[in-house]
Parts: sequence; C-alpha cells; structure tokens
Amino acid sequence: MRMITVSREFGSGGREVGKRLADALGIAYYDREVLEEIAKSSHLDPEYIEKSMEGGMPVQYPITVSHSFSYIPVLQSPALNLLIEQNKALERLAKQGDCVIVGRSADVLLERYNPLRLFVYADMESKMRRCRERAQEGETYTNKELRRQIRQIDKARAANHAFVSSFAWGDRRGYDLCINTTDCNIKELIPGLSAYVNAWFAEREKAQS
Amino acid sequence: MRMITVSREFGSGGREVGKRLADALGIAYYDREVLEEIAKSSHLDPEYIEKSMEGGMPVQYPITVSHSFSYIPVLQSPALNLLIEQNKALERLAKQGDCVIVGRSADVLLERYNPLRLFVYADMESKMRRCRERAQEGETYTNKELRRQIRQIDKARAANHAFVSSFAWGDRRGYDLCINTTDCNIKELIPGLSAYVNAWFAEREKAQS
Repeated sequence: MRMITVSREFGSGGREVGKRLADALGIAYYDREVLEEIAKSSHLDPEYIEKSMEGGMPVQYPITVSHSFSYIPVLQSPALNLLIEQNKALERLAKQGDCVIVGRSADVLLERYNPLRLFVYADMESKMRRCRERAQEGETYTNKELRRQIRQIDKARAANHAFVSSFAWGDRRGYDLCINTTDCNIKELIPGLSAYVNAWFAEREKAQS
Repeated sequence: MRMITVSREFGSGGREVGKRLADALGIAYYDREVLEEIAKSSHLDPEYIEKSMEGGMPVQYPITVSHSFSYIPVLQSPALNLLIEQNKALERLAKQGDCVIVGRSADVLLERYNPLRLFVYADMESKMRRCRERAQEGETYTNKELRRQIRQIDKARAANHAFVSSFAWGDRRGYDLCINTTDCNIKELIPGLSAYVNAWFAEREKAQS
C-alpha cells in the first residue's frame, strides 16, 4: 500500500504537486473526491460541507461532570459530525489502494497506513504570484487583501490540524519531506520527486519484509 | 555552479546524506575540510577551531555610545574572528566549483551562490539509535545523557545559525528541501534524492537562461 498525503500552504502549488505526482506514479488522486464521499453518506451538499469545514473547526471539549465525561455536547456538534464523516470517507478511499490525498489532515487521520507525508510551501511573494496566475476573471484583490486571504486560509488549516495532531501544522517533525516551491516550475520537479518517493517506499517495504 | 548545503540535526545522518549525495553527483564534499581551510589561514589547530566554534558562538552586540556604534568589542572577539576566517574559507572552497557543504551555516553565508539548501532531521529515538551505532568503543552514555547531549549540540548549532540568519535553524522557510530520515536507510534514498536535486538545478538553470 503506497499512500502519499499532501499538506500545503495556500498558493504553494501543493495541489499541483499532488496531482502531477499521482499521474506520474499512476495512482489515484483525491482532493474534492473526499468532499463528494462525505456528501454521499451525509446527504449534504459538497459546497456546504466545504464551507462548514474550511473556516477552522470550532474546538469543543468533552465536559466532565462529577468524574464522568459527557460526550453528548460534542457528538451533537455539526462540525464534529462532519469530521467523523470525513474520517469515514478517508477510510473508504484509503481501502481502494495506492493514492495521493491532498489536505483534510489525512497525514494524521490515516497515519496507520504509514503514508509518505509531504508538506509543500513557498515564500509569500511566490504564493501571491501563483494565486494571481490562477485567479478567475474579475478578481480584483489588492496585494494587501490577497496576502491577508492567504494568511487566513492557512490559519484555518492550522486550526483544523491542531484538532487532530500533536505537531503544529507545518512543523517539519510531522512530515517525511518538506518541499519549498518558491520560484519553481513544479512540472519540472516531478520526475525527481517521483524517484525520491519510489526510493522511499522501496526502502520502507524492504525494511518491513 | 551547483552548490548543495546540508544543515542537520545531530544524529540524523545528515553528514551521510551529504557524503553519499556528493559521491552520487560526482562533486566535491566539504565538511572537516572547512576547518582545515580555516587552520591554513589562521595558523590555528583544527581541533582548537572546532572546539571554539561548536559551543555556540557568544553573540555580542555592538554598543551604542551617544548615537554612534562601537564595533570594537565585537571585532576583538576571537570567536568573531573565527567566523570571519570561516567565511573566507567557505568562499575559497565555493570558488573551486560544484560541491556539497555540510554545516557551518553555509546555507546563509554562501546564499549568493543560490545553493540548494537541505535540512536533514529525524525523531529522537532514531537519532539516539544512529549515535549508538557509530559510538566509539568504551562510550557508556545512559539514554538520558545521550538525549541531553544531542539536544545540547543542536542548541549550539541553532545559536550559531541565529548569529547569521533571520530564519531560525530548522525553520522550513530557510531551506529548499527538508528530509526526515527516521527509520530510513539513507543509502537507499540517495538515487531518488540525486534525481530530485538534478531536476531542481536543471529547472533553476532553465529559468535563468
């Protein structure tokens, strides 16, 4: 089983890294597919699910009443229900075999599959340029607004990640390989990255056999 | 010009990564050679130089006296003199062409050569195991002592790095690729890593031409 998880700063091109890597390795790629899986079982709209989850999950603590935990307030939270549904969706996708999964804290939630955990990042200037290049027509963010938006999205990602992991989002210790894409043409890096990924899995499989 | 700098946590196998990578790429490898270069120009013993520099450079601040800086206390510091000598030594080695340089904050000091900056790290258990494997006969550190020693050496490296860089030592933003060697047989990763490094330089050279 070869699973690669891709965590990434907004605008770093992490999604492109994931997609191209999956293509190069000839394995499945999951990104929005996770939302669609959640939609299937929850009967909610994928757009609604995305909106509900991307703002940073509200962290809720179990309440202790006279030495016994009460889980009811947590289980009743729609956000936590979505997390549970997401967990199940990731599990179903993982069972289908080798894959690249972008985002969704899959690096932590699917830890038992021993994924190769990538973190993709870049400097702010490079991320802003990438955002501008793929912006939809009519988008008129100022640099200041764009910078703030990038920071906000990453802040929400970090908050979601903190809900499930003991390492901070982006802390190298939680990843196997951290790739800086500043000034990089991602397409050109893929053959090299595939070679590294293949070597990593081959070594891991040898150690386990 | 292809320069690769290797920063590494003590016990992570960063030196092995650097040496094997240099061999695979057929380029020069500098590690203790930097000390020997400093020794040549300073007429000091390499062992003495190493000892003087590895304890964490004493950071000295210029003193402001009625709105003018006094640099004298800094320039008189033997540690700073060694830093200056190290800088010159790195410069001389860099001029000799493609190379891998381990440690010495070469990632920052030789920034103008646009090096590929690697950071190699591993979890504590893995680093302790690596230290035990290469320990000299008669070494009888307890686990607690070994753990403390690893932390101390890295603390000194971080302190030396802080002297020259705006990014903290080990902060992913100061590196192009961060490699986790936990449970890895480094030798097996080298073909993949070489491929990545070659792709990275090829892409960089294409962008510049």
